[in-house]
Amino acid sequence: MSTATPVSRFPVPELNDLPDDIREKILAVQEKAGFVPNVFLALSHRPDEFRAFFAYHDALMLKEGGSLSKADREMIVTATSARNGCLYCVVAHGALLRIYAKNPQVADQVAINHRKADITPRQQAMLDFAIKVCLDSAAVGDADYEALRAQGFEDEDIWDIASITAFFGMSNRIANAVSMRPNPEFYLMGRVPR
Amino acid sequence: MSTATPVSRFPVPELNDLPDDIREKILAVQEKAGFVPNVFLALSHRPDEFRAFFAYHDALMLKEGGSLSKADREMIVTATSARNGCLYCVVAHGALLRIYAKNPQVADQVAINHRKADITPRQQAMLDFAIKVCLDSAAVGDADYEALRAQGFEDEDIWDIASITAFFGMSNRIANAVSMRPNPEFYLMGRVPR
Amino acid sequence: MSTATPVSRFPVPELNDLPDDIREKILAVQEKAGFVPNVFLALSHRPDEFRAFFAYHDALMLKEGGSLSKADREMIVTATSARNGCLYCVVAHGALLRIYAKNPQVADQVAINHRKADITPRQQAMLDFAIKVCLDSAAVGDADYEALRAQGFEDEDIWDIASITAFFGMSNRIANAVSMRPNPEFYLMGRVPR
Amino acid sequence: MSTATPVSRFPVPELNDLPDDIREKILAVQEKAGFVPNVFLALSHRPDEFRAFFAYHDALMLKEGGSLSKADREMIVTATSARNGCLYCVVAHGALLRIYAKNPQVADQVAINHRKADITPRQQAMLDFAIKVCLDSAAVGDADYEALRAQGFEDEDIWDIASITAFFGMSNRIANAVSMRPNPEFYLMGRVPR
Amino acid sequence: MSTATPVSRFPVPELNDLPDDIREKILAVQEKAGFVPNVFLALSHRPDEFRAFFAYHDALMLKEGGSLSKADREMIVTATSARNGCLYCVVAHGALLRIYAKNPQVADQVAINHRKADITPRQQAMLDFAIKVCLDSAAVGDADYEALRAQGFEDEDIWDIASITAFFGMSNRIANAVSMRPNPEFYLMGRVPR
Amino acid sequence: MSTATPVSRFPVPELNDLPDDIREKILAVQEKAGFVPNVFLALSHRPDEFRAFFAYHDALMLKEGGSLSKADREMIVTATSARNGCLYCVVAHGALLRIYAKNPQVADQVAINHRKADITPRQQAMLDFAIKVCLDSAAVGDADYEALRAQGFEDEDIWDIASITAFFGMSNRIANAVSMRPNPEFYLMGRVPR
Repeated sequence: MSTATPVSRFPVPELNDLPDDIREKILAVQEKAGFVPNVFLALSHRPDEFRAFFAYHDALMLKEGGSLSKADREMIVTATSARNGCLYCVVAHGALLRIYAKNPQVADQVAINHRKADITPRQQAMLDFAIKVCLDSAAVGDADYEALRAQGFEDEDIWDIASITAFFGMSNRIANAVSMRPNPEFYLMGRVPR
Repeated sequence: MSTATPVSRFPVPELNDLPDDIREKILAVQEKAGFVPNVFLALSHRPDEFRAFFAYHDALMLKEGGSLSKADREMIVTATSARNGCLYCVVAHGALLRIYAKNPQVADQVAINHRKADITPRQQAMLDFAIKVCLDSAAVGDADYEALRAQGFEDEDIWDIASITAFFGMSNRIANAVSMRPNPEFYLMGRVPR
Repeated sequence: MSTATPVSRFPVPELNDLPDDIREKILAVQEKAGFVPNVFLALSHRPDEFRAFFAYHDALMLKEGGSLSKADREMIVTATSARNGCLYCVVAHGALLRIYAKNPQVADQVAINHRKADITPRQQAMLDFAIKVCLDSAAVGDADYEALRAQGFEDEDIWDIASITAFFGMSNRIANAVSMRPNPEFYLMGRVPR
Repeated sequence: MSTATPVSRFPVPELNDLPDDIREKILAVQEKAGFVPNVFLALSHRPDEFRAFFAYHDALMLKEGGSLSKADREMIVTATSARNGCLYCVVAHGALLRIYAKNPQVADQVAINHRKADITPRQQAMLDFAIKVCLDSAAVGDADYEALRAQGFEDEDIWDIASITAFFGMSNRIANAVSMRPNPEFYLMGRVPR
Repeated sequence: MSTATPVSRFPVPELNDLPDDIREKILAVQEKAGFVPNVFLALSHRPDEFRAFFAYHDALMLKEGGSLSKADREMIVTATSARNGCLYCVVAHGALLRIYAKNPQVADQVAINHRKADITPRQQAMLDFAIKVCLDSAAVGDADYEALRAQGFEDEDIWDIASITAFFGMSNRIANAVSMRPNPEFYLMGRVPR
Repeated sequence: MSTATPVSRFPVPELNDLPDDIREKILAVQEKAGFVPNVFLALSHRPDEFRAFFAYHDALMLKEGGSLSKADREMIVTATSARNGCLYCVVAHGALLRIYAKNPQVADQVAINHRKADITPRQQAMLDFAIKVCLDSAAVGDADYEALRAQGFEDEDIWDIASITAFFGMSNRIANAVSMRPNPEFYLMGRVPR
């Protein structure tokens, strides 16, 4: 688990020194992805925070039900993380967005300017709301709910959009503050048709 | 658990309908505080998110070790939540700040303008950093770490400041998006000398 | 008139050294309020400015006629002073707002996020306009007048809202520049039911 | 006193209907300037506010003593009023600045970009501070005082700079809110060498 | 071609040392205007950039056809250059605007606050769009096109407004970065009726 | 030259209908790149602007001399175009940056947050300056020149950085206003090692 370039400003424990549950979670993701995304390594420095972070992440991103697709969720993450200038999250979640959407261009599009992206009007409304929650949540009000309902979103979906934005707004701030680096593997994922 | 004014835009489950662990946590806080802060009720609508939220909260706010006092932690929450225009968090955590700091004025001071607050230079530096993480985390860099170290903060403290800011930045966005209302009890807590 | 903590960055004259009219005004407010709000002391350093300041203040805040209640006026002051980060004015006028509105929560609400405050739609429109005058007066136009008229405001009321906002925008800038400190008495005023 | 274009959104009383002191002040300025600046007409709609406004104005702008020249004072007004997008004040006080400074270019320079103006380093520091008071007074602190003292300003001068900025910030907001129009005479004043 | 005050931070070649086409263009403008605007001198330091700059300038500003008058074009330049704080362009193109519009006041009006200027609703819409392209082009969308079409603009006119704004946004940035100074002659041009 | 998705909001002439010089330039770029970047097609709608645009582009980007490498130039374009939210320029010039820098990650890094990019301190200073010219050119001053000279830049390099930023700031605004779409080929260019 040595890395040529540092994972973040903080030390990363040896795998053997980690609590069992955390080591197992890390080995599982390595098994699945072929590498360990740095967010797992960086947060393993703080086991309790690691557990809560991924529990929250999974509750929002692996949630059953609701009308947000996996691609929708990653699109929210990519677009709002770009507004927060978070290198780790745009690169890592942009990769997931490309894969779930089976679209090699959409992650760059929503990161740079979602208004010019090849997405549906429903997704435009979803991102408009997510970006408002990201940048000016104090101004969210009834009109925002109405705009989303007009696109067919249920109130439970609105909770999801807001919470995903809020959770990754937290993740963006942590990643920026500790200089978490994206793994090189993410940059190319989902860009080349198999 | 009926409330004259709504807890948030979303429904709150009956206490009896909640999973045992959540009901017990709510009853425990009611026992301790004399009332149930609305954030427990609002999030009980989503049990998995409730569990992760409070696990993360406790990992950061009840953490042993480090040089941040409980008052320092609540000061970070109050100052940054004010920047995010979050009524719930400023009112609720301002109350906790007054109590932990044994100071009836400091919460209003850091919420309105921390530069004019009666706090130490170390706390000024702590809040300067927290507000930067809150408003412009993409610009955080070495100079920010140096400024905090010059005030005697360890790097682990810096992680704490950043993570508390980030976690409550999430909380602020959720509270604003769902219109979470502060309990009336918070407004006066810690203001009147006993 | 010695003070443990300074009133501002500038010296405060002895009461006996002040011109008669200013000394009398200060003694009158002390008689009425039980203490001398620091703005009287801070500005007594400049007698001509003191006189003009309070003449303007009284013309706007003690004005007969118009449809703005005393609570409305203090609500404008509290909400806009918060946007300007003015500790003195939020604390002092928040106290007056609580008293006039007979509402211990409303000052904190409009200072933190007026959109989440328990106020009428008419007051929401009043504060929306006041905050626009406060933050971006160059953009005020016909549509703003129409929005206020739709809530029943006369044009003379609009003059009042704009002028109160403008006057306290001046007061906020002076208070911030000279570090005017709120008297400790203000923090608790109007919070505890008698 | 009829005007082809309106003075503001609000009615202007007939000269004969005004209180004596206000009519006399208006006639005096007409005698001196050759025309009545619209700010006198617009504010005559509210006699008490008229009196307080000009009393404050005169206390700051006609003040004896201190190290700010008349040109310095008008330079502060012109530069900060431009930041507030106030047509009346930039045009009217830009005219006064040109006359007092005997410089036909300086008003346009400080209105557009004071950093490129042909002014002294002392005046640059004065405008840097004034613009900070204008745009972000909550951030004013010790370092700002030090920077001005380093240019030879006394603390009383700093009070003057801050108060002039604050007073005209009020004036800018009122003028923008009521659409006060500058008299055509101002545009050319001080531009043509006599 | 010696100048008492510098043209910019960069050296200006002697007229005789310039390529023929550039020297001839400079002599032609001197013949026509009576002086050489400093932008010609400043850019002559880079002949290839000089040629491309003026070719682009002429394509946009001397263009035949379309519904934008010469005054309209200079009005766009003046209003947007003011938003960019470009002393050279506001002073130089404000002069041209006064001349083409035969209006000694309009340049100051649109530079300070176009909403308060004595211009047509069509020109207001034109400047609203230009300022949006200037300050937030990423947000331009269908609604902006509709608003302009509603005022009678063809899509080709919209291209012109956007391109003029964009070209002078480039010019503003170069002028600010190299400290290009406006010639003194511009300040008074078009202000005095002949 | 038919395209499934539109090149921009404006029509693209048939190749045969274009002036000879423009058609030849388009055929040459197609020969070299294997496709015609949409900026050539979009601007061919306006031949004179096309010619001036590419003459200026080539003067800045193909310039001999100076210390900016081709990768440096494209890095400036990528970083500043991201700040302007220009999809076309980030995607197209990010591709060129990857190729010139022989680095598949650097374009995403500088587009998202140049402070976290794997670039030299000299490039950091270059981008700091470029982004200041992009976002706040009115504030550029001596200190910015000093910071660049301290990294070994000559004043002629500073002109280059400023002019490249300014030129692509123009390009960004045009592309955003006319909705210029990047060719799909750009997204993957330079990402896969050959």
